[in-house]
Amino acid sequence: MSSSRHSIGSYLIRRLQDYGVRHIFGIPGDYVLTFYQMLEKSPIKVIGVTREDSSGFAADAYSRINGMGAICVTYCVGGLNVTNSIAGAYAEKSPVVVITGSPGLNERKDNPMLHHKVKTFSTQREIFAQFTAASAVLDDPGTAFRQIDETLAACWRTKRPVYLEIPRDMVSVAPRLASRPKSIVEKSDPAALREALAESIARINASKRPVILADVEVHRYGLCRELRLLTDRTGIPVAATLLGKSVISERHPRYIGIYEGAMGRPEVQQFVEKSDCLLMLGTLLTDLNLGIYTAHLDRHRSIEATSEKIQISHHQYTNVLFGDFLRGLLKAKIRRRTFPIPRHAPHYTPPVKASPSNPLTVNQVFTLLNEWLRDDMVVICDTGLAMFGAVDLTIHRGTEFVAPAYYASMGFAVPAALGAQMARPRLRPVVIVGDGAFQMSGTELSTIAKHGLNPIVLVLNNHGYTTERLILEGPFNDIHEWRYDQLPTLLGSGWGCQVHTQKDFEQAWRQALEHHHEFSLLNIHLAPRDSTTSLSRLGQYLGECVKRNR
Amino acid sequence: MSSSRHSIGSYLIRRLQDYGVRHIFGIPGDYVLTFYQMLEKSPIKVIGVTREDSSGFAADAYSRINGMGAICVTYCVGGLNVTNSIAGAYAEKSPVVVITGSPGLNERKDNPMLHHKVKTFSTQREIFAQFTAASAVLDDPGTAFRQIDETLAACWRTKRPVYLEIPRDMVSVAPRLASRPKSIVEKSDPAALREALAESIARINASKRPVILADVEVHRYGLCRELRLLTDRTGIPVAATLLGKSVISERHPRYIGIYEGAMGRPEVQQFVEKSDCLLMLGTLLTDLNLGIYTAHLDRHRSIEATSEKIQISHHQYTNVLFGDFLRGLLKAKIRRRTFPIPRHAPHYTPPVKASPSNPLTVNQVFTLLNEWLRDDMVVICDTGLAMFGAVDLTIHRGTEFVAPAYYASMGFAVPAALGAQMARPRLRPVVIVGDGAFQMSGTELSTIAKHGLNPIVLVLNNHGYTTERLILEGPFNDIHEWRYDQLPTLLGSGWGCQVHTQKDFEQAWRQALEHHHEFSLLNIHLAPRDSTTSLSRLGQYLGECVKRNR
Repeated sequence: MSSSRHSIGSYLIRRLQDYGVRHIFGIPGDYVLTFYQMLEKSPIKVIGVTREDSSGFAADAYSRINGMGAICVTYCVGGLNVTNSIAGAYAEKSPVVVITGSPGLNERKDNPMLHHKVKTFSTQREIFAQFTAASAVLDDPGTAFRQIDETLAACWRTKRPVYLEIPRDMVSVAPRLASRPKSIVEKSDPAALREALAESIARINASKRPVILADVEVHRYGLCRELRLLTDRTGIPVAATLLGKSVISERHPRYIGIYEGAMGRPEVQQFVEKSDCLLMLGTLLTDLNLGIYTAHLDRHRSIEATSEKIQISHHQYTNVLFGDFLRGLLKAKIRRRTFPIPRHAPHYTPPVKASPSNPLTVNQVFTLLNEWLRDDMVVICDTGLAMFGAVDLTIHRGTEFVAPAYYASMGFAVPAALGAQMARPRLRPVVIVGDGAFQMSGTELSTIAKHGLNPIVLVLNNHGYTTERLILEGPFNDIHEWRYDQLPTLLGSGWGCQVHTQKDFEQAWRQALEHHHEFSLLNIHLAPRDSTTSLSRLGQYLGECVKRNR
Repeated sequence: MSSSRHSIGSYLIRRLQDYGVRHIFGIPGDYVLTFYQMLEKSPIKVIGVTREDSSGFAADAYSRINGMGAICVTYCVGGLNVTNSIAGAYAEKSPVVVITGSPGLNERKDNPMLHHKVKTFSTQREIFAQFTAASAVLDDPGTAFRQIDETLAACWRTKRPVYLEIPRDMVSVAPRLASRPKSIVEKSDPAALREALAESIARINASKRPVILADVEVHRYGLCRELRLLTDRTGIPVAATLLGKSVISERHPRYIGIYEGAMGRPEVQQFVEKSDCLLMLGTLLTDLNLGIYTAHLDRHRSIEATSEKIQISHHQYTNVLFGDFLRGLLKAKIRRRTFPIPRHAPHYTPPVKASPSNPLTVNQVFTLLNEWLRDDMVVICDTGLAMFGAVDLTIHRGTEFVAPAYYASMGFAVPAALGAQMARPRLRPVVIVGDGAFQMSGTELSTIAKHGLNPIVLVLNNHGYTTERLILEGPFNDIHEWRYDQLPTLLGSGWGCQVHTQKDFEQAWRQALEHHHEFSLLNIHLAPRDSTTSLSRLGQYLGECVKRNR
């Protein structure tokens, strides 16, 4: 591509398309209007949201499914509204491009107090530098194209957000000198790769009970297929972490379930921790992934491969790419074996058909949902009861479970459903969200309604912050009761109903399935402290943390 | 007060009370639960909001009315949600104390990936350091009390937000050594003060047409009374800026109106700019205050007194306190004079009684409102049409107009109403908010309903971002239509109605006044591009900025 005809703005739009970005989320403002107008005329579709933070969550989910996502917001009053959702994307490795306008360079003479300015003209950039993999202000036509290339490459390479700020008088500037997109190719050190592979293969072949623990980076680096092939060719069983849930189909015959230390199913814990060769692929060793550090993973018997390093036992290879390593394993001669594995089965407890007209319990909700989920659905969870309750849902294919399973920000799920369905319209989102989280961002269903999307939203209405109730009870955990099912009245579209019993739930689900062309919202009434086994256990551990640390 | 019995948490609570803080806004989370429990048992009332950013706006408005306000949020997922609203408080000089929990020091060994952590344990603090006057992590019992004293003093002195982070295992730690609250008293340099006053008084007395231009710092530093006395004793007339609106009663006989360069009323512009001695008190020279730099204020003929400096003509005194200077003027012999001044009168145009059943116009809305406003009301505006339309409302007493008139963040008004009415329960908020801004934070009426507050909310429903339409039109300015008046159905309380005509408006206002015990919401239908004179002019200027800077 010759880029001599491009302006800085149009070049950025072109490069976003090269990375597969087809939608951009955000809200305009005067410092970014010129770029908005340019976007509007481009093949990239602008999705206006009701609040900027939603654009961050939407683009995060979009990135997870599409490979890369982007937002476009105005200076400070827009940008500083997305810090939380973009920080979450940083923590959970989701590649979101943050584009923001800013005052023109011509306007900055004598450092005037322009509206939206907080302190200095670089305040916003300095804030974003704290939680982006790269950031640039496109204030020099001579270097802007290269900065765009490098920044987008960093986003792609690190799977983390990046920040691009365009002063408004730079958007239409076309550099005089042509520039070619710079392809930035990272390579493994061949000798290091050989050695790391040889050592790993020897360990795996020498082991009796190798187990794969697969996490989020397998998904982010597009290696789900390689993971599946690896288990298929070698017979090594696979567990996933909470953040990596759905990195392999949960109906795969060698999938054993979610590993989360003592917080999860005991048979999974034992099986993983007793392995004499644990192959940790793309893992983020977070407290939630490690069951609040109840995990006992022996480094001595582990091989950990991530985008940052390959660690075998206690030594590390830092110049080996994760993808090269995984593909290397696939090509290697690894002894095929079969051995008995724990059966993956949800451990939702009570028999369900028992009391269709008694008040519904959380366990019933998840047990029924587990029966009902279909191949064309994506489960999107908010944090809290919604996410921890969903741990044992059986996700049919890959990448169909989206949740903020490390950063754990409330308010994620509804905007994420917007992003997920924009990325893949035929995938119907099933959104599981607590009432507290829903109050934060549930009105983003407005944008979902505007675009005729059809998620099914299950509001777990238990009158407050249930996870916190389990940690430390107090009146600060109570919230004002809403008639969530009345949201369609406010928004002028969508369908809502109340659910008190199993019978209600079954009927509501059937009706929701029939509402093809709009969103459905089920206001599911639950007792304030009703919980799942996994969340109760989590609450207990977190409560002990609070007590120990006071 | 002996503080030997205090823990770090209880000392902080005590010191907040010393500064008059009676309410604290926020949402709990596990890293801050222990402190929440302590707050709950203290005389300070915890006001739980639906989203953290609302707590920032609420505390900002609370601070403006109460003198200081505070929020308490959890680590990162809470804190990073308030960056925008706290940045706004920084820009507009509103003293808000941000309190946040964080992981215990005991938990940080080996730098674990604890949930909510973005990058490093200091990421959040580094972000807040960009837009707070002081910030501290209370991680050392030996210095914590002093840090609290100094940080709160900085908040009080600068009228800007500050940041206090308490690792959760520090909340209950009681330092062994007693510590006394440190009173940090700032003083003027007496000689500099004398000289600055002498020079100013000479200039004022030698002038023929002195005029005061009063701005926000007069209000923030509690000097409204001194301002009134100054005009009463000297006869010098007073104009206010947009950000300083209501710093003096707009019914004061020597009040001439809002000065905003060529954006405002021409007679006010001329009167201010032709003054041979302009006394600028507590001014922030922002683009919106200066009518997008259409102001022509001659430094040579000006005296500018602010918290940062006293500037006379082209020289500065940096070690003179604003309050000392103003009180010095009050005590001085300043020649009393009378001269004709422009009459303060709103310039809403069309005669109102003409067409009670025709579609309502923006001008009619503001003209009627101006007749209806009562002494016991506070006008709270969101940015955009709401704020620029309200420029010429006559505010009866002091400090009764609250708006984000510099930072101009959307979504301010509804949460601000919560803060304002908590600060002064008998003051009934009249909230003027555009539909775009309402979609951002209107559901915070949930908290208003929970506490039985009774604001009257006027949603100016013109189907999109009208200010932006005036700058640059495009489909990105359209928003999804809500039935705003149905919000009470969602929230289970409040009263709402639709308004299409003047007759509807009159009837709705009467009914709203009768709804003493709950909020009222008027969904006021307006044409998409209907505007006031002042906003149209602003849109034109901002549109020219966009064109010039593309």
